[in-house]
Amino acid sequence: MNNEVKILAPGTVANMVCGFDILGFALHQPADEMWMRLLPEKRVVIHPDPQYNLPTDPEKNVAGAALLAMLDAIDEPLGFEVKITKHIKPGSGIGSSAASAAGAVVGANALLGGRFSKTDLVQFAMFGEKLASGVKHADNIAPGIFGGVTLIRSILPLDVVALPSPELYVVIVHPQIEVRTADARAILRQKILLKDAIKQWGNIAGLVAGLTTKDYALIGRSLEDYLIEPVRSILIPGFDLLKQQCKAAGALGGGISGSGPSVFMLCQTEAIAHAVEKIMINLYTGLGIAHHTYCTTISNAGITTQPNNNPVFAPL
Amino acid sequence: MNNEVKILAPGTVANMVCGFDILGFALHQPADEMWMRLLPEKRVVIHPDPQYNLPTDPEKNVAGAALLAMLDAIDEPLGFEVKITKHIKPGSGIGSSAASAAGAVVGANALLGGRFSKTDLVQFAMFGEKLASGVKHADNIAPGIFGGVTLIRSILPLDVVALPSPELYVVIVHPQIEVRTADARAILRQKILLKDAIKQWGNIAGLVAGLTTKDYALIGRSLEDYLIEPVRSILIPGFDLLKQQCKAAGALGGGISGSGPSVFMLCQTEAIAHAVEKIMINLYTGLGIAHHTYCTTISNAGITTQPNNNPVFAPL
Repeated sequence: MNNEVKILAPGTVANMVCGFDILGFALHQPADEMWMRLLPEKRVVIHPDPQYNLPTDPEKNVAGAALLAMLDAIDEPLGFEVKITKHIKPGSGIGSSAASAAGAVVGANALLGGRFSKTDLVQFAMFGEKLASGVKHADNIAPGIFGGVTLIRSILPLDVVALPSPELYVVIVHPQIEVRTADARAILRQKILLKDAIKQWGNIAGLVAGLTTKDYALIGRSLEDYLIEPVRSILIPGFDLLKQQCKAAGALGGGISGSGPSVFMLCQTEAIAHAVEKIMINLYTGLGIAHHTYCTTISNAGITTQPNNNPVFAPL
Repeated sequence: MNNEVKILAPGTVANMVCGFDILGFALHQPADEMWMRLLPEKRVVIHPDPQYNLPTDPEKNVAGAALLAMLDAIDEPLGFEVKITKHIKPGSGIGSSAASAAGAVVGANALLGGRFSKTDLVQFAMFGEKLASGVKHADNIAPGIFGGVTLIRSILPLDVVALPSPELYVVIVHPQIEVRTADARAILRQKILLKDAIKQWGNIAGLVAGLTTKDYALIGRSLEDYLIEPVRSILIPGFDLLKQQCKAAGALGGGISGSGPSVFMLCQTEAIAHAVEKIMINLYTGLGIAHHTYCTTISNAGITTQPNNNPVFAPL
């Protein structure tokens, strides 16, 4: 019972421009580190990252809530112990809570020999998201668990589709301001014009076609959001100028990551990605806003596990 | 100047279920026959099908309006003469006017050695659609000109994307009732709920992904329309029962062709397509509504031209 797994649970980008609530992708970096082992009784023990004030009570912890949901589906007397070192900053908009919840269930499934499907794991991990944001959404969970670009075609019943995609560089800037997910949801209009929806779904179809047929130009033309970005981007200082400058430097396009405040840009080459990162740093330095950038790629693997040869837990 | 081309301009299905205003496809059958030749002066002569009461004045004829738009882009003193035999019934909802307009410009372009791009041709043919329905839409024009399944990502600027797709059988029933395009437009709600739009674009993304990755099951799951069909299907007697019976017989799914009254179903095999056709015939026979069915496939070629060796026009 002392076998341990080490988990890498990367950040994820939800609300991929026009694909609000349905399209997201997994990053290579940043990634949380997690360690897990089985326990011989039905309980969950969480050792959260001490650098953040996160709850240890499993019912109040996103990884704990996800694991308790999984334990409900298991008859045997077993449980999980988890240690988490966070590298994805909570509140950054790149799936920090989802990485903990999804990483925990992927790790648990590895300890159990892979008895659950990826769709099952998404269902369990959504209990963590419900705890974090009040909404049982899968936008960040699904890309973490499936890897690559994922489509959540439907929530009820859950239907997640892993989309083939070409190599894409991702540059992210996290301006260190607070955008509460609840606020970002509250300012959205509940009713939209059919004619705007039609423009939006033209771009959604174009983006999916561009990804699956590896047509970078089509991806770039389709990365426009007529509905959500115009409303939410007012919460992010410098957004319009940033987007304009990044596209002028060759970025295919991009937008708000999740509900912000991070902003991401997709690029076809590493050279463009580095140029875009410099633009992001210059812009937020100029605005006097503390920020952090990541220059990475879309990860087709998503969350990964491996046997842990340097035990972190004391023997049971 | 007496070289003639023969044109086959097939029917097309617009508003492909969830893809209202953006997705359509070309059929193998039915197809209008057209013959064309160049004239040595800037004019358009139309010989419409005598079985329908269609205008001969080129400004009032859909093929004529499309050709006049093309002539506006040509400096030389030349024109076109066109003879049309219609096999696509006007008002059936499978792109009868679009076949005439698009067939004419594709034929003209063949006579001119292919000087215009497919996107140019769509722009010209849209003048025919404007004449026919008052709206310069490309939903039927684009699949005819590009072939296969086409995405109209954007109208302004025009961006048509030919999507790869697997072999698909199409069964169409044309119940001989009148549904005016203008009425079918008028009953649509101008405002929709964001949450319904999200469900719709999940299916649009799923349908495009299913087509481009040849995943029939995903195509089937995605063929649901939450927004348009519930409103428009009330204009088509027997619609709900028809759809239910066809899906029970193995059809992947389907919906209203264009703005109706024709209804189409997509099927993975010819055997299922034949079963579906029988269901359609039985249902409308039972309802006492005159009808016609087509059992065909998606045509990747769309409109085709060939030299005509049996001249139909008198020497100039």
